Amino acid sequence: MEARRAQLLGAAVDLFGHRRPEDVSLDDVAAAAGVSRPLVYRYFPGGKQQLYEAAVLGAAEELIGRFEVPSEGPPTERLAAALDRYLEYVEAHAPAYGALLGGGSVAETSRTDAIVDGVRRRAGEQVLHHLGVTEPGPRLAMMVRAWIASVEAVSLSWIDEGRRQPRAELRDWLVDHFTGLLLVTATTDAEAARAAARALPQETPDSPAGTLLARLTALAPTAAHLFDRAP
Amino acid sequence: MEARRAQLLGAAVDLFGHRRPEDVSLDDVAAAAGVSRPLVYRYFPGGKQQLYEAAVLGAAEELIGRFEVPSEGPPTERLAAALDRYLEYVEAHAPAYGALLGGGSVAETSRTDAIVDGVRRRAGEQVLHHLGVTEPGPRLAMMVRAWIASVEAVSLSWIDEGRRQPRAELRDWLVDHFTGLLLVTATTDAEAARAAARALPQETPDSPAGTLLARLTALAPTAAHLFDRAP
Repeated sequence: MEARRAQLLGAAVDLFGHRRPEDVSLDDVAAAAGVSRPLVYRYFPGGKQQLYEAAVLGAAEELIGRFEVPSEGPPTERLAAALDRYLEYVEAHAPAYGALLGGGSVAETSRTDAIVDGVRRRAGEQVLHHLGVTEPGPRLAMMVRAWIASVEAVSLSWIDEGRRQPRAELRDWLVDHFTGLLLVTATTDAEAARAAARALPQETPDSPAGTLLARLTALAPTAAHLFDRAP
Repeated sequence: MEARRAQLLGAAVDLFGHRRPEDVSLDDVAAAAGVSRPLVYRYFPGGKQQLYEAAVLGAAEELIGRFEVPSEGPPTERLAAALDRYLEYVEAHAPAYGALLGGGSVAETSRTDAIVDGVRRRAGEQVLHHLGVTEPGPRLAMMVRAWIASVEAVSLSWIDEGRRQPRAELRDWLVDHFTGLLLVTATTDAEAARAAARALPQETPDSPAGTLLARLTALAPTAAHLFDRAP
C-alpha cells in the first residue's frame, strides 16, 4: 500500500518537476508508474490537483535541503554554495519552476502558494542564520525578503531567456548583490551594521566579498568628486 | 452613454482601488454610482470581473504616470522622487495592491497578470532611461528586474507589517539598494560600468548616492584586512 503510494508520488514528482502542470495528465502519471488510471484515483482521490500539490511539497523539501550548508568559512562562500545548488535545481526543473513562480498557472492554489511561501521563509532563515541573526528587526527581515525576491525574479528571467548566462556567473553576481545590499543597509540600520561587522572579519581577500571590495575600489575614481567636502 | 460608462468605471476604480477584490460586489459599484445593478450589466456585460480588470488597467495607468520625473538633477534624486510617488500610491491603496501583487487572489487572471507585467516593464524602461540606456544587455536588464522585484516584495512586507516603517525611510533605503546594486554590477558588467560612470558625475555630496558613499566609507575599517594583499 505505502510502497504503491510512494511509487505514484515519485512518478508525479518527476513529471510535474520537469513540465508545466498543464502539460501533465493523470494518464501520464499512471503510465509512468505502470498502473491504471483508477488505481491512481484510489490513492489520490483528489486526482491531478492533489498529485500536483504533493509534487510541489516534494520539490519544496528538496529545495529546502539544498539551502543547508556548513556554518564555517567565509559567509559569502557559504551563500555561493547554497545558491549554486538552488540554481542547479532551477536549471534542471525550468518549466516547473517557471510555472510555479511565474504566476498565472492554472494549478496555483492557496495551498501551493503557502508551500512556496514556506520555502521563502526557510531560505530567509538560513541566510539570517549565517549572519548570526535569529530574530531579525523589520529592516533586516525586509532586506532578506527583498534579496530572495530578486533571486526568484532573476531565476525566472534566466529561464525566459533560455539560460544563456552561465550559472556560475549568475551565482557570483547574486552573491555580490547580497553583499552590496547588506553593506548599504548597514549604513542606516544598526542590526545590519552588527551583522556586517560579524561577517566581514570571516571573509578573506579571495572570498566573494573580498574580491567584490577589491573590484569596488577600482571604481572609486569616478566617485572622487563626491568626497569633495571631506576636511 | 460615454459619461455613464465613465461614471461606473470611476466608481469601480475607487472601490477596487481601496479594497480587496473579494470585498467588492457589483451591488457596491451600482450603489456607489447611484445606478441599478442591471444598468451596470448593460455597460459591463462581463460583470464584476470586467469591472475589476478595467479598474486594474486604470490603476496601472496612474502608476505608470507616477514613474515619470524630469531628466535632470542627480539620478538618485530622480529615482527617490519616482519611488516616493510609487510608495504613496501603495500606501493609499494598500489592500488592493496587496491583493493584486501578493498572489493567490481569486480575481487574478492572465489579463491582470499582463497588466501588472506591463507596469513592471514601464518601470524598468524609466529606470534605464535615467541611466541613459535604451537597449540593455542581459545583465543590466536582469539587474533592473531584480530591483523592481525587490521594490514589490518590500512594498508587500511594508503593507503586511501595517506600514510601521516611515515611507521616506523605506524610499531612501530602496534608493541605496539600487545604487549598491548598480555599483556591484558595474564591477563585472561593462555596460553597467558605463552606466555608473555616466551617472556618478551627476551625483553631488548631498544626493542619495553621495551620502551613501560617505556612509559606506565609514564601514571601511571592518574590511581593512581584505585589502592586505594590496602592494
